[in-house]
Amino acid sequence: MNRLYHVPLSPFCRKVRLVLAEKRIEVELIEERYWEREADFMRRNPAGKVPVLRMDGRVMSESQAICEYLDEVYPEPRLLPGTPAERCEARRLCFWFDDKFHAEVTSKLLYERVNKKVMGQGYPESRAVKAGSQAIKFHLDYMGWLLDQRRWLAGDVMTLADFAAAAHLSSLDYISDVDWNRNAVVKDWYAKIKSRPAFRNILADQVPGFPPPRHYANLDF
Amino acid sequence: MNRLYHVPLSPFCRKVRLVLAEKRIEVELIEERYWEREADFMRRNPAGKVPVLRMDGRVMSESQAICEYLDEVYPEPRLLPGTPAERCEARRLCFWFDDKFHAEVTSKLLYERVNKKVMGQGYPESRAVKAGSQAIKFHLDYMGWLLDQRRWLAGDVMTLADFAAAAHLSSLDYISDVDWNRNAVVKDWYAKIKSRPAFRNILADQVPGFPPPRHYANLDF
Repeated sequence: MNRLYHVPLSPFCRKVRLVLAEKRIEVELIEERYWEREADFMRRNPAGKVPVLRMDGRVMSESQAICEYLDEVYPEPRLLPGTPAERCEARRLCFWFDDKFHAEVTSKLLYERVNKKVMGQGYPESRAVKAGSQAIKFHLDYMGWLLDQRRWLAGDVMTLADFAAAAHLSSLDYISDVDWNRNAVVKDWYAKIKSRPAFRNILADQVPGFPPPRHYANLDF
Repeated sequence: MNRLYHVPLSPFCRKVRLVLAEKRIEVELIEERYWEREADFMRRNPAGKVPVLRMDGRVMSESQAICEYLDEVYPEPRLLPGTPAERCEARRLCFWFDDKFHAEVTSKLLYERVNKKVMGQGYPESRAVKAGSQAIKFHLDYMGWLLDQRRWLAGDVMTLADFAAAAHLSSLDYISDVDWNRNAVVKDWYAKIKSRPAFRNILADQVPGFPPPRHYANLDF
């Protein structure tokens, strides 16, 4: 059986879960308290982080490397588009979310509010939370600007970039940190992606001590 | 003419420069004071960072997306290996250096010692420098462990992972922050990659106010 070592709200794990589900690959989800750096887990990934995917007789880590592998070996449906230039744009946006959005928003909101508590590292730092709440506005505006010109974030077909973005936003939505009223096209885009069957599993996530708000799993939010 | 907007010591720019040179693609290098967020530059890359490559009638950003594009369109020589599993391992290690090594080492040594001064952001924080000097030991040991089993970092052929690693290490070597005596196989690996023609341009870099040490450009270091 395929196994994904993950934590429910990690956007990197969610990206991989969405890709697996979109490609209809079954996987057993195993929650991993990676911050405890248990020896077995560190052998699987010396970087000490999730996601880690055990599949096809291999142990793989780094979400983007895993998603590229899945798209090459299980090409149905393709999540990286057809031409090198289109793939470059899709990958650019994956890194936009996994690097820039992660540093400016996800780490400042989700990690401060949830991860710190779960990992026993104290209370959220209000300066960080404020900075994250400010920065997400710029990112939603940038997404809106892209979506004014394109049907999906990287072009006219859905790509891995949409899953990377939706992975971050869905984790933040779990703690009510996304203002869906800021931009109507972004809300429409999220409604489209949220209603895909691949998203169901993510909408069912529950983190003890952090009940999701009602709108989180609601397709009509 | 192809144009690369860059700064000399950025490991992300160096990775792209190495790939361009390895594929014998000529490019005009333009130094970009990206931290000044000048409007023209922000239009080229709203993420506000280098490298940015203008080529084939396109403007591309994010070093990994650029390198994947170059490898797809100019496949001679291939820098991502033949099978999906091998590519997954090469990409994993690219992210190892560009994410983990960058956060734990490059940002704590190079950015503290050089970037802060160049950008007028004050003095190095000694706690960060200490942490970086400590962390690089673990990374050199991990590289040594990989190279005990493989000829190159990701397997028996040279890949983009070697360039990603060499890009970070060469920038740190410019400020004498790599202890080449720690691990003989890592030193051998660096000597091999440093002596490639693609590396020449990088060994000729000069940053005003930061003269490189003698051994930096020496192939017999």
